[in-house]
Amino acid sequence: MQTAISKTTAEADVRKVIESWQKAATASDLNAIMSHYAPDIVAFDAVLALQFKGVDAYTKHWQNCLTMCCGPMIFKMQELNITASDDIAFSHCLNQCSGTDKDGNEHSSWMRVTTGYRKTNGQWRIVHEHFSAPFDPESGKALFDLKP
Amino acid sequence: MQTAISKTTAEADVRKVIESWQKAATASDLNAIMSHYAPDIVAFDAVLALQFKGVDAYTKHWQNCLTMCCGPMIFKMQELNITASDDIAFSHCLNQCSGTDKDGNEHSSWMRVTTGYRKTNGQWRIVHEHFSAPFDPESGKALFDLKP
Repeated sequence: MQTAISKTTAEADVRKVIESWQKAATASDLNAIMSHYAPDIVAFDAVLALQFKGVDAYTKHWQNCLTMCCGPMIFKMQELNITASDDIAFSHCLNQCSGTDKDGNEHSSWMRVTTGYRKTNGQWRIVHEHFSAPFDPESGKALFDLKP
Repeated sequence: MQTAISKTTAEADVRKVIESWQKAATASDLNAIMSHYAPDIVAFDAVLALQFKGVDAYTKHWQNCLTMCCGPMIFKMQELNITASDDIAFSHCLNQCSGTDKDGNEHSSWMRVTTGYRKTNGQWRIVHEHFSAPFDPESGKALFDLKP
């Protein structure tokens, strides 16, 4: 069984991965963003497709997303919760995603994010990521105005 | 460190929780469904709200969902992937959710599901659940017609 100390260390390591991912995403640095993912990542992103399987497919999708949004993107996390053991972990949080489009209009909405991690050869990597906005079952529209 | 055997056992235990949850959800058995969740569950459901915190809030939401849908609900899982250690685990899958509304119209769409588990006092419980459909960034509408 793992010790309380190893659990705390794993949680701190995963927190570092999250902070590093956030820094890369805010900088729109594609290479830095992708360095956090395992080759066999399965991603459920908020837009366009049910899933992106493998780091190549997910890199193309991230590239498209960075092209769609102009100016700096802001990812502000809230209510981050990490559950970690020695070599696997998962986390969830709310993430306020903000950006400015080509016409200078600012967009901002709260998304939900769940992430799965695995430690391989001493490195924590994201093996699963799930971003989403809830929808209104009456209109079928995504709800972008919800606040925590 | 955990052994390969304990990992396999944990994965099998989590698979049993998933199968039992699926049986309860298909039977629309609210008590049976809720028995799978930890008291401190944080749920990101596909509809209406950013999150439901605690089993009481999530029970009310499940009750509303079961009232909205008439007739049997069907949850058909595909591409289930489980990552488990001795006392924590996470899984993801695609889930075809089907049901019939009050006018007899059948609805069916593929959702993405990510689930986090914790073993406490020998019992595996769901501590986090994330259901969603992706949306189209142009129209802001949820995409119900996507297929794996």
